Amino acid sequence: MILTVTLNAALDVTYRVPVVQPGAEHRVEPGGTRAGGKGVNVARVLHALGHDTLVTGFAGGVTGLAIRTELDTAGIREALVDIDAPARRTVTVVSTEDGTATAFNEPGPPVSVGDWTRFVATYHSLASRADVVVLSGSLPPGLPDHAYAQLIGATSTATILDTAGRPLLAGLAARPHVVKPNAEELASATGLDDRPAAARWLRERGAGAVVASLGAAGLLAVTGDGTWRVSCPEPVHGNPTGAGDACVAALAVGLATGADWPSLLADAVALSAAAVAGPLAGDVDLDTYRRLLSTVEVQDAHADR
Amino acid sequence: MILTVTLNAALDVTYRVPVVQPGAEHRVEPGGTRAGGKGVNVARVLHALGHDTLVTGFAGGVTGLAIRTELDTAGIREALVDIDAPARRTVTVVSTEDGTATAFNEPGPPVSVGDWTRFVATYHSLASRADVVVLSGSLPPGLPDHAYAQLIGATSTATILDTAGRPLLAGLAARPHVVKPNAEELASATGLDDRPAAARWLRERGAGAVVASLGAAGLLAVTGDGTWRVSCPEPVHGNPTGAGDACVAALAVGLATGADWPSLLADAVALSAAAVAGPLAGDVDLDTYRRLLSTVEVQDAHADR
Repeated sequence: MILTVTLNAALDVTYRVPVVQPGAEHRVEPGGTRAGGKGVNVARVLHALGHDTLVTGFAGGVTGLAIRTELDTAGIREALVDIDAPARRTVTVVSTEDGTATAFNEPGPPVSVGDWTRFVATYHSLASRADVVVLSGSLPPGLPDHAYAQLIGATSTATILDTAGRPLLAGLAARPHVVKPNAEELASATGLDDRPAAARWLRERGAGAVVASLGAAGLLAVTGDGTWRVSCPEPVHGNPTGAGDACVAALAVGLATGADWPSLLADAVALSAAAVAGPLAGDVDLDTYRRLLSTVEVQDAHADR
Repeated sequence: MILTVTLNAALDVTYRVPVVQPGAEHRVEPGGTRAGGKGVNVARVLHALGHDTLVTGFAGGVTGLAIRTELDTAGIREALVDIDAPARRTVTVVSTEDGTATAFNEPGPPVSVGDWTRFVATYHSLASRADVVVLSGSLPPGLPDHAYAQLIGATSTATILDTAGRPLLAGLAARPHVVKPNAEELASATGLDDRPAAARWLRERGAGAVVASLGAAGLLAVTGDGTWRVSCPEPVHGNPTGAGDACVAALAVGLATGADWPSLLADAVALSAAAVAGPLAGDVDLDTYRRLLSTVEVQDAHADR
């Protein structure tokens, strides 16, 4: 089972309008209300691929109930911890004329010490049964930067950490197996523009491997077994939100099955591209995935070092 | 007890941002999530004034649960009917820089014949115990134009109908005691620009009295006892959303207590102005209300006929 942790889970509300006009009243076409947050998106991709997955994190109030209800409807197992503060919403308004997205994101719920203590107990029980643990996204207010480090330190199985800034840097101390920053997160966490150097910097501070997702440019992986650049030969158009989460889903499956890095990374690039072709974050276009899998180019980049 | 009927109740979500930028991602400051819809706003004003009120209508799904939970927290009694389709949301984003509101309104829930049958049974039981029944707002999808007429026809006590277009015109056949269009609704329902003539047109078709709310210009009332123009001598700045609902609340109290038209209308104008001074729809600034009550000018406009 792959456990995904989403401490800042959200209720993602999507609307469609012809065009967003500030100051106007819009009658919207509802485009769906779904459980969201990066770890939830990872679980959604894993579920679509037929893998056993379980979602945990916080989900309080009526928005938390809506998150749990939607996961249940989608057939995705969850063990979210109920807290007093309601889970955050995100409202994304997509223009049907030009495809642009206007997003309104609520802050996360304030998490109390008591909430955290209950979560950690739940986490221990779930992580002990997991093959891989994925920890994704920002931390809600009230949690310290080392929250992920505490969870990773208590985990005996493989961990993937996908977060940014101080929670990422603090998490390195607990030696996650893989960290997956995107290009901007890699640069801002390390202060280095040179990507291989930045990835090595993160490894020196505790990351077992660094898989940096570079958007249309594919992946850069710096691991104990080698360095690879992986790219998708075919441009894929669509919604890049959730592509990083699909990449993490592929990494989790690869770690769980013991795949070698080149095949694992090829899978991650194909699945990321398939997420771009999917309509919403957490959706993957399985036809695109299967078609691209054989065409992805994995290049040994040892010479970069 | 004053019963308010909101067939298209909503969960009103308000956000604050410096400025709405289409295509951008906004971190919002939550400004509150409340039960909404015109009849709910009327009940909120009545509750603030200390009157016994009860909210009914439809509230399905997790958004319906959120509506009921918020009413319970606010101490407003409700007997909303649970249906399968979730209640609609409205998302209003207020600019803290210029005060403009950008609204995204979901369509109402599809109401089935079974839902309507269950509602009508509930309504009969509640309306038989009410002093006044207020029926407010648009009809959700699935309900015919004569839905309000059916409810009013089954009501032996005084009724106030505050809706627009075809549901208003169809409702007249059941002879509501008062209808309360705003200026635009009055013109569009009747096709007449002359307001006293338009009000008389509505009375000829079944309305006992017509109280037209004219924004900053106050009220025009055409009744079986006379015609009045009522205005507020002091301009009030703020949020006009909900001013019409506060006017209806005052009309309901006036009908329940048997007040004469001039005092009832003065109350309605003062309370509407107090709603403009309140921060959200359904809020009234009680200090403004008390201060304005003695200054409102009621003018006998019999000569207009």
